[in-house]
Amino acid sequence: MPLKSPEEYVRSVKARKPMDVWFRGEKMKDPVTHPALKPSLETMKKMYQLAHHPKFKDMLTTTSHLTGKVCNFYTSPLMSQADAMRKTRLARAMGELLGCCAFRCTGSEAISGLYPITYEIEKATGTKYHERLKKWLARIQEEDLTVTAALTDPKGDRKLKPHEQKDPDMYLHVVEKRKDGIVIRGAKLNQTGVVLAHEVVILPTTAVGEEGKVYAVACAVPVDSPGMKYVLGRFPIDLRFGDDETEMVDVGKKFADHQAMLIVDNVFVPWDRVFMCEEWQFTGKFLEYFTAVHRLTAGACKSGGLSLLLGATKLAADSINVGRIGHVMSKFAEMGISAETLYSMSLAAGVEGFQHESGAWIPNSLIAHSTKFQATLIPSNALRYAREIMSGIGETAPSAKDLANAEIGPMIEKYLAPAKEGMTTEDRLRVLRLIENLTRGTNWSAMAIHGGGNTEASRLMALRHMNLEKLAKIAEVACGIDKDEAKAVDLVSEREGKIDYGPGAFKQ
Amino acid sequence: MPLKSPEEYVRSVKARKPMDVWFRGEKMKDPVTHPALKPSLETMKKMYQLAHHPKFKDMLTTTSHLTGKVCNFYTSPLMSQADAMRKTRLARAMGELLGCCAFRCTGSEAISGLYPITYEIEKATGTKYHERLKKWLARIQEEDLTVTAALTDPKGDRKLKPHEQKDPDMYLHVVEKRKDGIVIRGAKLNQTGVVLAHEVVILPTTAVGEEGKVYAVACAVPVDSPGMKYVLGRFPIDLRFGDDETEMVDVGKKFADHQAMLIVDNVFVPWDRVFMCEEWQFTGKFLEYFTAVHRLTAGACKSGGLSLLLGATKLAADSINVGRIGHVMSKFAEMGISAETLYSMSLAAGVEGFQHESGAWIPNSLIAHSTKFQATLIPSNALRYAREIMSGIGETAPSAKDLANAEIGPMIEKYLAPAKEGMTTEDRLRVLRLIENLTRGTNWSAMAIHGGGNTEASRLMALRHMNLEKLAKIAEVACGIDKDEAKAVDLVSEREGKIDYGPGAFKQ
Amino acid sequence: MPLKSPEEYVRSVKARKPMDVWFRGEKMKDPVTHPALKPSLETMKKMYQLAHHPKFKDMLTTTSHLTGKVCNFYTSPLMSQADAMRKTRLARAMGELLGCCAFRCTGSEAISGLYPITYEIEKATGTKYHERLKKWLARIQEEDLTVTAALTDPKGDRKLKPHEQKDPDMYLHVVEKRKDGIVIRGAKLNQTGVVLAHEVVILPTTAVGEEGKVYAVACAVPVDSPGMKYVLGRFPIDLRFGDDETEMVDVGKKFADHQAMLIVDNVFVPWDRVFMCEEWQFTGKFLEYFTAVHRLTAGACKSGGLSLLLGATKLAADSINVGRIGHVMSKFAEMGISAETLYSMSLAAGVEGFQHESGAWIPNSLIAHSTKFQATLIPSNALRYAREIMSGIGETAPSAKDLANAEIGPMIEKYLAPAKEGMTTEDRLRVLRLIENLTRGTNWSAMAIHGGGNTEASRLMALRHMNLEKLAKIAEVACGIDKDEAKAVDLVSEREGKIDYGPGAFKQ
Amino acid sequence: MPLKSPEEYVRSVKARKPMDVWFRGEKMKDPVTHPALKPSLETMKKMYQLAHHPKFKDMLTTTSHLTGKVCNFYTSPLMSQADAMRKTRLARAMGELLGCCAFRCTGSEAISGLYPITYEIEKATGTKYHERLKKWLARIQEEDLTVTAALTDPKGDRKLKPHEQKDPDMYLHVVEKRKDGIVIRGAKLNQTGVVLAHEVVILPTTAVGEEGKVYAVACAVPVDSPGMKYVLGRFPIDLRFGDDETEMVDVGKKFADHQAMLIVDNVFVPWDRVFMCEEWQFTGKFLEYFTAVHRLTAGACKSGGLSLLLGATKLAADSINVGRIGHVMSKFAEMGISAETLYSMSLAAGVEGFQHESGAWIPNSLIAHSTKFQATLIPSNALRYAREIMSGIGETAPSAKDLANAEIGPMIEKYLAPAKEGMTTEDRLRVLRLIENLTRGTNWSAMAIHGGGNTEASRLMALRHMNLEKLAKIAEVACGIDKDEAKAVDLVSEREGKIDYGPGAFKQ
Repeated sequence: MPLKSPEEYVRSVKARKPMDVWFRGEKMKDPVTHPALKPSLETMKKMYQLAHHPKFKDMLTTTSHLTGKVCNFYTSPLMSQADAMRKTRLARAMGELLGCCAFRCTGSEAISGLYPITYEIEKATGTKYHERLKKWLARIQEEDLTVTAALTDPKGDRKLKPHEQKDPDMYLHVVEKRKDGIVIRGAKLNQTGVVLAHEVVILPTTAVGEEGKVYAVACAVPVDSPGMKYVLGRFPIDLRFGDDETEMVDVGKKFADHQAMLIVDNVFVPWDRVFMCEEWQFTGKFLEYFTAVHRLTAGACKSGGLSLLLGATKLAADSINVGRIGHVMSKFAEMGISAETLYSMSLAAGVEGFQHESGAWIPNSLIAHSTKFQATLIPSNALRYAREIMSGIGETAPSAKDLANAEIGPMIEKYLAPAKEGMTTEDRLRVLRLIENLTRGTNWSAMAIHGGGNTEASRLMALRHMNLEKLAKIAEVACGIDKDEAKAVDLVSEREGKIDYGPGAFKQ
Repeated sequence: MPLKSPEEYVRSVKARKPMDVWFRGEKMKDPVTHPALKPSLETMKKMYQLAHHPKFKDMLTTTSHLTGKVCNFYTSPLMSQADAMRKTRLARAMGELLGCCAFRCTGSEAISGLYPITYEIEKATGTKYHERLKKWLARIQEEDLTVTAALTDPKGDRKLKPHEQKDPDMYLHVVEKRKDGIVIRGAKLNQTGVVLAHEVVILPTTAVGEEGKVYAVACAVPVDSPGMKYVLGRFPIDLRFGDDETEMVDVGKKFADHQAMLIVDNVFVPWDRVFMCEEWQFTGKFLEYFTAVHRLTAGACKSGGLSLLLGATKLAADSINVGRIGHVMSKFAEMGISAETLYSMSLAAGVEGFQHESGAWIPNSLIAHSTKFQATLIPSNALRYAREIMSGIGETAPSAKDLANAEIGPMIEKYLAPAKEGMTTEDRLRVLRLIENLTRGTNWSAMAIHGGGNTEASRLMALRHMNLEKLAKIAEVACGIDKDEAKAVDLVSEREGKIDYGPGAFKQ
Repeated sequence: MPLKSPEEYVRSVKARKPMDVWFRGEKMKDPVTHPALKPSLETMKKMYQLAHHPKFKDMLTTTSHLTGKVCNFYTSPLMSQADAMRKTRLARAMGELLGCCAFRCTGSEAISGLYPITYEIEKATGTKYHERLKKWLARIQEEDLTVTAALTDPKGDRKLKPHEQKDPDMYLHVVEKRKDGIVIRGAKLNQTGVVLAHEVVILPTTAVGEEGKVYAVACAVPVDSPGMKYVLGRFPIDLRFGDDETEMVDVGKKFADHQAMLIVDNVFVPWDRVFMCEEWQFTGKFLEYFTAVHRLTAGACKSGGLSLLLGATKLAADSINVGRIGHVMSKFAEMGISAETLYSMSLAAGVEGFQHESGAWIPNSLIAHSTKFQATLIPSNALRYAREIMSGIGETAPSAKDLANAEIGPMIEKYLAPAKEGMTTEDRLRVLRLIENLTRGTNWSAMAIHGGGNTEASRLMALRHMNLEKLAKIAEVACGIDKDEAKAVDLVSEREGKIDYGPGAFKQ
Repeated sequence: MPLKSPEEYVRSVKARKPMDVWFRGEKMKDPVTHPALKPSLETMKKMYQLAHHPKFKDMLTTTSHLTGKVCNFYTSPLMSQADAMRKTRLARAMGELLGCCAFRCTGSEAISGLYPITYEIEKATGTKYHERLKKWLARIQEEDLTVTAALTDPKGDRKLKPHEQKDPDMYLHVVEKRKDGIVIRGAKLNQTGVVLAHEVVILPTTAVGEEGKVYAVACAVPVDSPGMKYVLGRFPIDLRFGDDETEMVDVGKKFADHQAMLIVDNVFVPWDRVFMCEEWQFTGKFLEYFTAVHRLTAGACKSGGLSLLLGATKLAADSINVGRIGHVMSKFAEMGISAETLYSMSLAAGVEGFQHESGAWIPNSLIAHSTKFQATLIPSNALRYAREIMSGIGETAPSAKDLANAEIGPMIEKYLAPAKEGMTTEDRLRVLRLIENLTRGTNWSAMAIHGGGNTEASRLMALRHMNLEKLAKIAEVACGIDKDEAKAVDLVSEREGKIDYGPGAFKQ
């Protein structure tokens, strides 16, 4: 059975070749046991565990359309509308449970984007990209590996295209094409989960023209390949992590994630792991397919995190007995509605997708980008409400070690005693730290802004999928500039979005 | 075939008994031909016409589960997830085409709410409410009648319950129960479309306890019944309506709606038209079922109106050649995203519903109320953008009659000539008036605020469907107050919302 | 004494030569008595009356620095910090009292902008522009005339400069320079109050280069000059105005304003009324001086209107007894805070100004533009709150004529009876109409968006007055890129804004 | 001369008695040299240094009205409108320079609030509170001491009043009144700067009735008094602080502040340091006076911090060459306008104040609370913009130690090289960390939410100072409910706010 247990997972990552991982100027002896990665490891283990859990195994596993065998849902491309809806529901559920990135999502999105595009490239060029991908995929499924997607290049001067940069490595590219494979060089930023994964899928971050064809590269690379280097990113509370149980109270929760800068220093990739190599004409469409799934997910997981934050805020409010005051309940309601908004948009993006010729299900781009746009904005009020409601002490609370101290502890105990029956002062500290963790200590709120694309990128992509000319024509009929009412009726019968929704999408 | 043509519809409303309809201190001779109702009549005719239109007939008609015959979609309760999704899509499409209320929605929502509740009351009490409803419904379907829902009572002192009001008529109630039927008295405000409908369904506007049982009444009343009186509401540009074609340019569009105050002055309703009478225990649940459909729709139709407004704004921008300027395109994008947000939420509310024992499909209450909450807020930026982008002249443009005048017209022609090839000055006036119409001239923007419930009503209802205690428990596990990780997993596996979503809702 | 009584004002405008004023395709016989202008006339009369009122005469009159005699405050340029603060306070007070434009403001702003710029031009070129302006001004003060400022040209294609337009008249310009004066041609849009004024001051709407020097023109023109034509702009409730007292209840208030399109059809202006003619180098600076006063005022008068709207909303809330409910009071607070925000910004713009060499006081441009930016955004929530709180009946209430009707009136009386002791149903209608008037019936809310410049114009101008490079340098020191701490201290000691604030501005 | 140099200041705090200060479970050996307090010490030294700086000494010093000698501005109450304006300007300037709390503000606000209230109590009761305060103040001025204000009690159950709490110590109170002084017990939370100050002024945090009179206590206590205990609050990046220069790059800036929980464990205070003791009738008014100054300042210093953040964001944008892109410049503009908004409101609150009988200048309460209300909301968009514009790398950047590492450093150098001429990769890291510091690393953004009162407290206080009844009456006249136009004119001539603004406030 291809589903690893948490223990098998840990063994598998310990079995990787020695990796080049840096943190605060030092190379890690073993990333798997390093304190900075401990909460990440917990997250990963939980993800493997849940696939066996009675309440989640139906959601977290699926039958591979390649092998007919059970595999982890995240190792399969989205193959149906139901899959897309499941992606939304899972992302929300994992966000709610973990309050951080679930790590295995981006890989599944890479797979969902590559599946249809390799089909198209293979069809157009004859190169067996799709076949390769399927073969690679079957192995990933069989071994139940965690794959992450590497998208964001350093980009250098943002006004210049990849091939115009002073340093051509500012975007990852093919350095050499050999008989047995390719050599690639560059870097990828903000890589979530990569240090504890098995494989990373390199993807182009932008559409390129012919002059930039070396930047049109997609391939799968084992994370422990020679030449792969990782520098862990800092985040505010990174130094609180460790084995000290009391200090961990100040961390606020067990699960966390990590981001790393990935340096790809002339890494060799054999041809059977290469899924795009200089087919620049397909980069735009690939990004459309990929981001449709990626942004759908980015909205849904924020929805889950918002729910967790709402739960924490409720606890904090109750600890000072303001949980039933009018304005506090108003804010609870808004926080909850925010979560539903992102969830609904993500769900609708999946529902309104279409079946690609390859068999993959592509979510609706217009709604997916709209989802991410809202996901960059909507959480910000919720963050403010959470911080406001927990009151100033949430920002200035003493450490758990002070509370545990025999001399000063009792005084803190006395003065910070919660007003809620059955809640201890330590409990109160814990929930305040959970809010701190989510709102500023770790990167959860940062991912709402950046993960899956920022406000302007989402706005731009959404705009591209709107049909303003069509709407203008409808308006022309509405106000009598154009007297042809039948035209408006025809136009209205088609939904916005350049993508054809496929059969059955508009009517049921 | 039960589908009326527009002509048949007009004949049918002309055939009604003389009605008591007031406007500006005068009783109308014939509402069907009165200028103030002309754009409403156009709307209604269009709705009947579209049911025969090749592009819309599949959406606007359905097969009655009562008779097995084709009927208008709006004369049937929602019977499936697909019906719910169609409700969203139709509401958006009609909003986009008409830029005003489509009139037939509220009746269908009344039907969708009454269908399951009469089932429950009949089951509990034995009174054949459900049977009556189905019988009445079959006739409505057969005759293809337009039904509106009458919800909002005057309410008097908002802090007092119905039976506590100084004047007991402040909420409509049963005055007398006779052998052959009941007599009801009261008033309903803000009744959209009622004067051009065939029947109105009286509904309770609030849940009542036993002491208020006379207020627990639902029944269907022909609009021309003795004792029914209507006073048309004013809206800003109501005096522009009429037969003067040039003046109609200043109206901005052909379609509009109307709202009326409905006075129910001791109206007799035979028992076969009574669907609830003093079963106060069911008022709360009825409102839940009804509002779930009603608010889902209220979000979707605003989405359509936003699209029309976006099209008009695009035209206005092009008329001064700013349609491709950065900040204008940013605003276009936000307007479009706003439309997608409301659409997605409405769609998700339907998707996440459940099948009621009666066979009806009930949308998800939490999402439906969240949708309406957002629908009261989200359009307001779009309205501002539209007005900003059209520039000041949109608010102060001369009349079309000035433009048509031989002496001053040429000067206006010269100075307001659009910068867009092929657009005339009159065209430009038309599009500015369309924006004026939508943003303040008629009640489209007002309905975003009030129609289907205001911000606070939606917030409150959404909050009631959130499970804050559950979220708080998840948070307790997350921050280590509760060490039982399995509990959190269990809790997360259930979605928020008090309603059980029914089989298949959480996993596919 | 140069202060006209309201009666003298009316006589003076009746004494004007026959004017070419159009409305709905007809030339007005007499603008002073035309129903569409009646509420405007009431406004103007009130403005003249208040200058004699014990509570306002100190604010509305000043001692002319030109003649040493008492004159209306609006006929004098701002000559001190105290004058600037008074401009803010007056604008707020008039906005609160009238709920519409006070008409005399823009003229005073034209004067305040022309005063320093003519000084500079005269100093630079020797042409006696400043002397002319002072002489003209002395007469305006002596005769207590109402002056409006004509700024906004039709602009045609917004991407082209004035001299690049297909039709060169899209911006008003000098057609001919004669010995005795100049001939000008063009049009000005959105002219508030112009039809009931005595003089209009033509101003350039944009900075031009040498190639556009004919567009660099400023001059004063009597409104009844040959070649001046006016087309009244429509606004939603324009057809409700008239002598019918009952219908006027539906207007909602006595005072209103009007906007007109002004066509300047080869109008001759003698040299002693010309204050700029082809001095293109001074157009940018003129706009800076003028807009500093203009936008300061545009913020303050919105503040007053918001207060009036808050008062009306309070009444509407009390009429259904929700005035003391939590969320309603929260919204009252926000509405009031909005008013204070705009007021404070306007006040600060005046306080932080500087004394120009000519003696004029120039408000702080950065704050003035920031004020207008906020004034385009901040009222929009207040408008929504007002409409939400008054509830749907505010949008659909029957006419006052229905209420007055013997047959249907009593029914309306019964069902719309307010829950507030001492308030009649007619009172309730009145307050709902007042809210309708302010939020969408007339142009008050439109002026918040457009009057004095829209969001983007204000944003752009504000940005131009920020010193981002300076702030970046301070940040460089803060984060240690630059180790020179003394530099940051120096830089911080200067306030943002390109304008030197003059002696005493930074420290007291 | 009473102005300490930075060195004298350091000597003076080193000379304090051993203090009981805790951090992470350990008692500090010496707070003055502890790494966690190092950036706080830098801030304090800078504040002492600037009082001697040519550009700031006029702002930071004043002539004592008590002694006629020069003293630090923060050791004097506000005695004039000019003082109030200076408070605003100083707060902004210090915020811009330091990007954190300036420490000496709250003491000055305590003084400004106590000055008038002790005058009133003394006048009413004869107890020489005002005389004592002046005497104590003269010494503070003479010795140039830093005073902080201790306001926020733990509060326990927020729905209970102080005397109703289960533990009566949840609000600080008088335990014993002796002949020579009083004994007080309780705690104060969120105390900024207290560990490096000289004296702390204990203040009541809420108005109390007679039953809570023991909670009506104000007094001055040397920070090193027996029984005073301090527990340092944590904030996200607190563990980065230290002597490691490279690590300090990741801190982002040199200056910071600290917050501590202050435990007052039966502390004796001699009578000459007691300024209120059980005069409960004056607690409300005291809070009004104090918060008027406190909230004015809280708005102004956020304005300064926003400017610094804008400067940093500009640098970050330039580092990837997006500083001149449309949407980025739009956001710069909004950030700058946000700063101007808070600044203007703060300034206006001072300008619109009144002279108290004691000679103190009391800012306008309505505007001061409105300022704080906006200060809790307005920065949140700016924080989001800053994080968005710096892009994801700002949240996940490697440590400066990685950059400094000989092996991995060059790779980071290469890939994170800025696109801006003259900027090094380390510079880029520095500016990203500065943004991290301000947006989430330290408590700057937290203070925008909590410092000086949260959103709801400010809303409530602002509402209390609005005169809704007056505005309703103006509205009644406006819509013709009340025909007495003269009444409206009278009412409008008075400004909102319950406080009489004193002579000359309304007119100049």
